Formats: sequence, structure tokens, C-alpha cells
Amino acid sequence: MPENRNQQTGLTQLKQALAPANWSTDPDIIAPYLQEWRERWHGHTPLLLLPRTCDEVVTAVKICAANKLAITPQGGNTGLVGGQIPQGEILLSTRMLNKVRHTDSDSITLEAGCILQNLHTQAEQMNQRFPLSLASQGSASIGGLCSTNAGGVHVVRYGSMRDLVLGLEVVLADGSLLSTLHKPKKDNTGYKLTPMFIGAEGTLGIITAAKLKLFPKPETTETIFVALSDVNSAIALYHLCKNELPDALSLIELVPERGLTFVTQHIANTRSPFNESYPWYVVIQFEFSQKPLARERIEALLETALNKGIVQNAVIAESAQQTQTLLALREQISAAQKPEGGSIKHDISVPIEAIPEFIQQASQAVELLIPGCRPLPFGHIGDGNIHFNVSQPLNMNTQEYLSHWEAMNQLIHNIVSEFNGSISAEHGIGILKISELYKHTDPVKLQTMQRIKRALDPDNIMNPRVLL
Amino acid sequence: MPENRNQQTGLTQLKQALAPANWSTDPDIIAPYLQEWRERWHGHTPLLLLPRTCDEVVTAVKICAANKLAITPQGGNTGLVGGQIPQGEILLSTRMLNKVRHTDSDSITLEAGCILQNLHTQAEQMNQRFPLSLASQGSASIGGLCSTNAGGVHVVRYGSMRDLVLGLEVVLADGSLLSTLHKPKKDNTGYKLTPMFIGAEGTLGIITAAKLKLFPKPETTETIFVALSDVNSAIALYHLCKNELPDALSLIELVPERGLTFVTQHIANTRSPFNESYPWYVVIQFEFSQKPLARERIEALLETALNKGIVQNAVIAESAQQTQTLLALREQISAAQKPEGGSIKHDISVPIEAIPEFIQQASQAVELLIPGCRPLPFGHIGDGNIHFNVSQPLNMNTQEYLSHWEAMNQLIHNIVSEFNGSISAEHGIGILKISELYKHTDPVKLQTMQRIKRALDPDNIMNPRVLL
Repeated sequence: MPENRNQQTGLTQLKQALAPANWSTDPDIIAPYLQEWRERWHGHTPLLLLPRTCDEVVTAVKICAANKLAITPQGGNTGLVGGQIPQGEILLSTRMLNKVRHTDSDSITLEAGCILQNLHTQAEQMNQRFPLSLASQGSASIGGLCSTNAGGVHVVRYGSMRDLVLGLEVVLADGSLLSTLHKPKKDNTGYKLTPMFIGAEGTLGIITAAKLKLFPKPETTETIFVALSDVNSAIALYHLCKNELPDALSLIELVPERGLTFVTQHIANTRSPFNESYPWYVVIQFEFSQKPLARERIEALLETALNKGIVQNAVIAESAQQTQTLLALREQISAAQKPEGGSIKHDISVPIEAIPEFIQQASQAVELLIPGCRPLPFGHIGDGNIHFNVSQPLNMNTQEYLSHWEAMNQLIHNIVSEFNGSISAEHGIGILKISELYKHTDPVKLQTMQRIKRALDPDNIMNPRVLL
Repeated sequence: MPENRNQQTGLTQLKQALAPANWSTDPDIIAPYLQEWRERWHGHTPLLLLPRTCDEVVTAVKICAANKLAITPQGGNTGLVGGQIPQGEILLSTRMLNKVRHTDSDSITLEAGCILQNLHTQAEQMNQRFPLSLASQGSASIGGLCSTNAGGVHVVRYGSMRDLVLGLEVVLADGSLLSTLHKPKKDNTGYKLTPMFIGAEGTLGIITAAKLKLFPKPETTETIFVALSDVNSAIALYHLCKNELPDALSLIELVPERGLTFVTQHIANTRSPFNESYPWYVVIQFEFSQKPLARERIEALLETALNKGIVQNAVIAESAQQTQTLLALREQISAAQKPEGGSIKHDISVPIEAIPEFIQQASQAVELLIPGCRPLPFGHIGDGNIHFNVSQPLNMNTQEYLSHWEAMNQLIHNIVSEFNGSISAEHGIGILKISELYKHTDPVKLQTMQRIKRALDPDNIMNPRVLL
């Protein structure tokens, strides 16, 4: 079996080429890398590589290419769609590639293994800010965030990872090194390659470093929590914010009444800011580069919204403490679903104007599919990105409920397609959604992606089971 | 000769497939399409296609693909690097594809042949704004602007075309139609293809429609013109603006003393706002979403700049008329060079901190090459993008001077490369800069581009002489 001989030769070459501390076959060392944190996937690998330099990645990929050994790249292992878990591939973790290479007045260049939270700290020390922020930031790494085009709550103002990357260093499938780290901002010399690797989930190469935009810190921030009678009002409120304070809106998140109830029931130290209950809530954050007039503008905005009947009730955070309390009512929704049993999840987006109609149709559809199930649509309404989570009916067996996962996904994704939406707005495809991708994607787009994949990785060694 | 038979068959099929009004072989009709406006290139074509629908483009490309006929796509024919002029290829003009397809609150979808100036008018009628603005906007079309990733004076705030496009419709080399027009903003389902076609200069397909971002109109605009003692001060001023008014800076353009002198000498109704002469000037525009405090902030910024010695003198425009007068001192530089004889041009970018050193080295180098020549570096300092134009020495023969074009280009591009800069910051490669591209581009980037080109256009029928 020449395949196996190749594999043995390749593995031996890899162990010889990398320093002994930079690889392992010890099951105890490898175990945490094979376990996805939601426990949905368990992997296996003949060899874990932990390169400490870009040169070592080049060396490793060249050996893999010569022996046609497949590689699964892994960052902080926080992905939600299984793309980082090997099933027999060489596992290349970028964890030890964690140096900050360069900083200047409005950018930072750092290696793939650097952790998002450390980047926030580093930017803070430079009196700057990196605006991407998400729940897993204590573990998520720059390489993984780039490879999955991570989003989070500030996309409405700053965009997702693709919008924040100025340049990349990528080891391609043949081991050659492509770098756009040192390119000036403005460069019209041929195809723009950087955006293609962002969101490619490691199928076109291994990202080893990135140059990221930094932003000035806002002089002041204002946070409001408002109560609404329907989802249409949330859309109207979004447009009002965009029209009245276009430079300031930095977060706008939808919370359903059920979400607030779950959070205040199950999460310690939370309570609704209102005495009454309302069908929907929205939490909004604004950033201002100048403090004067900031509060007056927020008050004027709220007055307009109240007068127009868009908003039923509202509070403005008066302290950092209260800001955190209000944000927690959105952030804790997923956690608060756990005591309520199983939850079937969808990470979808539709055009923003279609959100109310989508939520209505999707809720009706799942309630027909599984009577008594409890839809809980929440999230990034400014991006049209709704996390359409559905908690199980009271008194239903959780395993039985979760057995409907695929059927419910198909139902929801069909509705998403009718609205020209996306079946994966921010979490990617990985191995979780490949069949849904093929069902819901324009064949011309799929064919173009496959052509690019074959052109850049003809032997299909880069994360071969993922995405395509 | 099977090639010729294919060509004859293909031409006949094209004439049969398109309505008679939508193609021409009449030399008088074709002539203006073959003439580039700076008269540097003259082309020839066996057939001009003027499709009126995307379907007609699909039909035409399928016939060309079947017969391996090469196509040169052309927009408004305002390109500066020859990419739009056929040399025997079929010429496909998108001029008649000029419908606005769809508008909503913050975007507009329109066909490739729509003219930029008409888009500005359309956006204005929607009480919105499309911020890309450049000298040729009365002729430049959306398809051409996308294909060349056009820039202009507002890139410092809004980015270039690639940053303003939400989705594209592209006819690929095999005639299949790829559309990302209807994708929601947030979509992580595989490779991001849209950015690759922007700036591809028609080598990967023909852009037939684009969905573009619109922005709220600023409530007020402030324009200042300042005098500086050196280029370092211009960089310091840029950073001051970014730090003090990060959301407001929308244009910052460098003007050398020689530029101001040429303009005020040769262009009617222009004069310097200052009684004295200074080595360098900068014109800056700020946009504010709220009028209150805008003027006070500009005044505070100027006071800081004057106190720190960054700025030697300054005026603030007090009327729309004065704003136009001040902007003209920058806009008319190219025109004002004409009465001074020949000008050898470079469209380069370097990291912003390197601009002063670049200008010094480049000026010395050209003065050594051709004693008495008059460097005139101006333009988009906030993007690191300098138009390094060099007027001929007084009393030199213009043709003799222009014969040094290539030698001077090489000299300047070598210096640009030392600073990790770009030899084409905004005008593209076309046929003008192919040899320079190969000299100054990372071979891995070139190889990756070639692989993508071969994957998407294996018979090399899409603008085959251009870029690669």
C-alpha cells in the first residue's frame, strides 16, 4: 500500500525535521486538541505538530506535500462546526506561534497563535483598540479567527475579521510562503488574495500571521436597553440609529421576551430593568470620539423613538456596572438555555428588512414540526444575523428532541433560502453544514470555489474533509 | 488554419445571436472605443458588442468560449493603463447595460454601464451619498470602476471600490453567471469571491452589475487649506486629524509649492489663499454627521497644529464657493502641468511614515537622471499614495524628455520596492505596467494569481494581454 508507506515516510520526516519539543504522539498531550468544546466531535491523529516559527510550518507543509499527507490546522480549538478536529489527518496547531511581530500607530502584526484577549490587552497598552469581541475570546486565536472570518457583536460598526485584516502570511499547500503583511494599504497590482483566505477554514493554506487594524478608543460610550412591541420596531429603531447617529452605532442586539425570562430566572445577579414585561427588547451601544453632546444625542434619539411609538420603554446605563448588567441580558442567553434542556441552533442571516417575516415564518414552522418547542431568536439585527435557537418543549426527552436537529435545520434553512439568506452567517461550514451548503448554494459559486481549491491545493491535503 | 475558422464561425454566431443594434463592425462607430483618451493606445477589433442585458453577455461569452475567441471588456474607456483597448480581441462594451436594478435604504444595485456621476445624482435623490469620487466621473462606469478597484480622494475615509461593493454579478469565462448580489451582508459559507473580481481588470470575467453601499449625507462639511514647512509635518498633521477627529477626516491631499505655482499661473480663477509662499500645502476635508461643535473642533485642531509648529498658516473655507476654490488648487495640478510640457507619471504608494524619505530619495534620483526636471509629488497622503509626476526641464524637447519614461519608471519603482511599496496604487497594471509588475512582485503572489487565472479561464479568453 504505497499510501501507507508514504504516510510512514512522511511522519518520520516530520519528526526528524521539527525540534522534539514541537511535535507529539503522546495520547495524553494530544487528547485536548482532539476534543471539541461542545463535545460534538472527537478526533484522532497520528501526529500533533506544534511549530514555533513560520519556517517550521513551511518545512512541515513541504514534507506533507511531498508525501501527500493531509493536514488539519487548528487555532484555539473554539470552532463550532468541527473544522478544527482531525479524523486521521496530521494535526497542526498554531498555538506556539504566538509572537507579536510589529506594532505601529494604527496596526499590529502578530502570529496566528496569539489569543484575542491578549490582543485586546496589547491594544489597550498602545492606547488603541481592536474592536472584534466574542464569547470565546479567552481561547480563540488570531489564525482561527481569520480562517473562520469571525464576527461578534461589533460587526455592525467595524465589520467581521475580513474587514479588520490588512495583510496575511499564509503557508500554501505546496509549502510556499505567501505574504501580504508588508503591502501598503493601497495597492492595485493584481488579484486581491487576502480576503479569499479569510473564511476558507484552512482549506487553502495555513495562516501563520496577520496584520490587523487598530482603532482609536472612543472617548465615551453610551448603552441603552429598550422595550419594543414587535420586531418591526427593532428594524425601525436600527434605521433611526443609522440615520441620526451614523458614526456612533456600535452594537445593536435583539432579545426576545423568552430570552430575558430565561436569563433572569437562571443566571445570578440579573434582573429586567423594567417592571413590566414586553414582547421584545433591544440593547444598543454607541461610541463617541468626543464626549460633549453624546448623552444629549442619545436622549434626543430616545425621545424621537418614544414619540414615534417605536420604543415602549427605555433605560440608559448610568455606570460601567449598569452597562455590564444590561449587556449580560443579551450575552447570557445561550447559557440560560441550558437549564431549559436541549436547544437546536441555527446561525442564519437574511436581509435586514426580512427579519420580522423570517422570525414569524420560522417560529410557526418549528412549532408545527415539534409542538411545544420554544423558539428564541436573538442576536445581531444590524447585520441581519439571527441566532435562531429553539429550546425543547417542557417535559420532552432531550435526546429525543435533539434527534430532530437535522430535520429542523433543513426546515429553517429552506426558509432562509427563500429570503436569499445565509445558512451560516458567522460560524462557517466545517463538517457540520457541508450537506446543507451543497443544498443551498448556487452551483456556479460551488464550482468556482472547487476550481480555486483544486488550483491552489491539487492534492487536497489542506483540511480535506472541510467545507467542500 | 483552424484558429481562423474558429474566429469566423464565432463572429458569425455572435452577429446572429445578438440583436443587430447591439453589435457593429462599422469603423466609424467603433473608432471612439479604440482610442484611449490620453492617446497612448490605439486598438483594433473585428467586432464591437454592445449587449443590453446580462443574458446577452452570457450568450456572447458562451459563443466566444466555444470558439476560443478572446474578449476585451470595456467600461467608460477612462482607464490609464491600456487595459480596455483591444488589439484584435472582440470588444465587449458594457455601455448599454445601464439600468438601475434595485435600491433600498443603504444600497443600490445597478448595471455595469451606469456612469459614476449619474450614480451620485441618483444617491442624492435618495438623500444618500456614494462617496467614491474622481476626475473622470462623468464618463467612468461602475463596471470599469469595479474592475480597476478605483480609488479617488475619499479613500482615506471610505476605502476604494472594493470596500464599497456589497455584491457583484459576473459572467465567467465559460459563460456561467456568478451572482453575489443577493447575498446578505453576513455570510460565512465558503470563499469570499467578490473581492477577487474587483481589480482583476476583466481577466477573470465580465462584471455586469454591482450592489454598492450608500452612506448618509454628512450634516456639515469643513474644508481647510494649510501651509507646511516640510512633508514630515503633513504626516504629523494626518495623525493629529486621525487622533482628534477619527470619524470626521474624509480627504487629506498633499500639494507641493510647485503644484500651487503651476495651478495659479495656468488655471483661470485660482489664487493662493496666502500672501507668502510655503514649501508644502495640505488640503483637508472633514465630514460631520452633526453640525453643532463641528467648527469649534476644526478650530481647536488648527490651534493645536499651529501651537505644535506642525502648521505654518491656515485658512478655513467660509462658503461652498471657497471650498471649491481651495479644492481646485489640488484638483487642477495635472491640468496645470500641461502648459509646462511633458510629464512622466508614477502612481505609487508606500507606508505612510516612509513618504517624506521616499519623496526625498525619488526627487534626488530623477534630478540626477535628468538634470533640471521638476518633480511634483502630490496626492493622497492619508493612503500613502503619491502621484509622483515629473515635469520636463525648461527648454528641453518634449519628445526627448518622454523617451526617458521607462528609465525613470524603473528608477522610481526600484525605490518604491525598497520601501515595500506598490508600483500601482490605484490605476492598475493593464498593459502599461506588466513588465514592471513581474519585476516588483513576489513570485509566490504571481504564481498564485496565475493558478487562479488558469482555473477560472483555462483558455485565456478574458482580456488575455492584460495584467498577467
